[in-house]
Amino acid sequence: MYDSDFIARCAQLAMLLEVSADPKPGNVDRKHDFGNLRYEHFLGSAVGTYAVFKKAASGQECPIGGLILEAVEASSAWQMAGNVHFGAILMLIPLCVAASLSSDIEGLRKNVEIVVKNTTVFDALQFYKAFGRVNVRVGKAETLDVRDPASLDAIESENLTLYNIMEISTPNDTLAREWTEGFPRTFRGAQILQKRFKSGHSLNDSIIYTFLSLLGSIPDTLIEKKFGRELAGEVSSASKQVLVSGRVAEFDEYLIGKEINPGTTADLVIASLFITLLGGLRF
Amino acid sequence: MYDSDFIARCAQLAMLLEVSADPKPGNVDRKHDFGNLRYEHFLGSAVGTYAVFKKAASGQECPIGGLILEAVEASSAWQMAGNVHFGAILMLIPLCVAASLSSDIEGLRKNVEIVVKNTTVFDALQFYKAFGRVNVRVGKAETLDVRDPASLDAIESENLTLYNIMEISTPNDTLAREWTEGFPRTFRGAQILQKRFKSGHSLNDSIIYTFLSLLGSIPDTLIEKKFGRELAGEVSSASKQVLVSGRVAEFDEYLIGKEINPGTTADLVIASLFITLLGGLRF
Repeated sequence: MYDSDFIARCAQLAMLLEVSADPKPGNVDRKHDFGNLRYEHFLGSAVGTYAVFKKAASGQECPIGGLILEAVEASSAWQMAGNVHFGAILMLIPLCVAASLSSDIEGLRKNVEIVVKNTTVFDALQFYKAFGRVNVRVGKAETLDVRDPASLDAIESENLTLYNIMEISTPNDTLAREWTEGFPRTFRGAQILQKRFKSGHSLNDSIIYTFLSLLGSIPDTLIEKKFGRELAGEVSSASKQVLVSGRVAEFDEYLIGKEINPGTTADLVIASLFITLLGGLRF
Repeated sequence: MYDSDFIARCAQLAMLLEVSADPKPGNVDRKHDFGNLRYEHFLGSAVGTYAVFKKAASGQECPIGGLILEAVEASSAWQMAGNVHFGAILMLIPLCVAASLSSDIEGLRKNVEIVVKNTTVFDALQFYKAFGRVNVRVGKAETLDVRDPASLDAIESENLTLYNIMEISTPNDTLAREWTEGFPRTFRGAQILQKRFKSGHSLNDSIIYTFLSLLGSIPDTLIEKKFGRELAGEVSSASKQVLVSGRVAEFDEYLIGKEINPGTTADLVIASLFITLLGGLRF
């Protein structure tokens, strides 16, 4: 079984390496702040959440929803930009819990499916509490609005678990889809990353390459919610082209200029990095 | 009393913020790697050492020398550039131990003096073991050579504690001087940093300002050992001028071009950041 400290270190380092990758198209990276949202806030958030990842990986009976809520609070306790890692936490918490039950990556793949399926109505309620603490862009198609107290009643009366909530969100949200489909994009990202790194590219290059690959094949949920499906599709096509042309800096500039942030892709990359580090990557 | 998780977070975040400060004259920062020594290695080292800082802050009976050795091993276990934080660890371990005995910064100041004075011969031996694991530049005037097994015999036969070793190194080493004089430069750095930040400057600017201020008033030990006293003095004078002119990027370029790295100043800044964060700085 993976050790809880090691698991937590993988989660924390995944967050740090992802935000540091440069140039990472359209997001905060080590060379780009966005107004008041600064690189340092992401460092503070990664430092703040370590203890919660360790708790998640400790094998105690900690409900997933409560852990997500705790991590969200720890992320923003330290620095004042609010929660900057909500999507990443949504991915990392079940992965940390599952890693504590696993001794290799294949085991992790099986266990993470079980862990998310076993979530409860209480997890759903705690998740909504966490959700209410952050400014997450909610799509029009969401049937349960986190700002509407009636949603909480509906969760209880309809007996919806956190897994059920993710099922409802699946059509419009890549991270929800990861939850309900066994994290296939996350594991694919980990394979892409590892292959690129093993073939002699730097870690930074491998992270950017993984980011572009995932963005190229999966329209970014955050872009979709902010600008609609068409633009999200266009950004994905452009990302595919950049993989060929190598003009990453130009792509970065274009996205930043238009304030188009592929934030969901960043969350996926963090989860992929976590798996790669857990699998033994050293750099 | 400060909580052990909080203390460890302050130590880890101090390392991350220091290496991320930009442009930081002459050292690895978020925009400068040095050949095979990359920014990512410093992130990996900060992630690796958290658990040792927590142990140091846990109030258990952990000898300082053993903690330094453990932190050195944890720093390089994760990433392959070797120990990149030796000087910082030498400062942070006694500060973490002292913080666990303190409830405010004044208490920390008193306790850290007591903590280092209470070190033993065993601490000295463990320290030398840690020292042997890293490539630390040793000045000509060092009387005890870590690569000479006879030094270890001398420590035992002469009953030298780790504090005594620092006394011997005091003429040639700022960090040793911090140990024997009650960390005055570290606390001064913390005051400079806090004052600058409170007056409305960004955290990044405040760190660079503290770096230039400390370098301007204390010739850097690493530069002295590598290039001699004269050049170290010149770099200090230049740093003072940069504080006035604001031409930091140019100074950075000059130092990097000549491979002049004020590494000891970076260690001091990390220790100052630790105190500032412990004192409650939020950003």
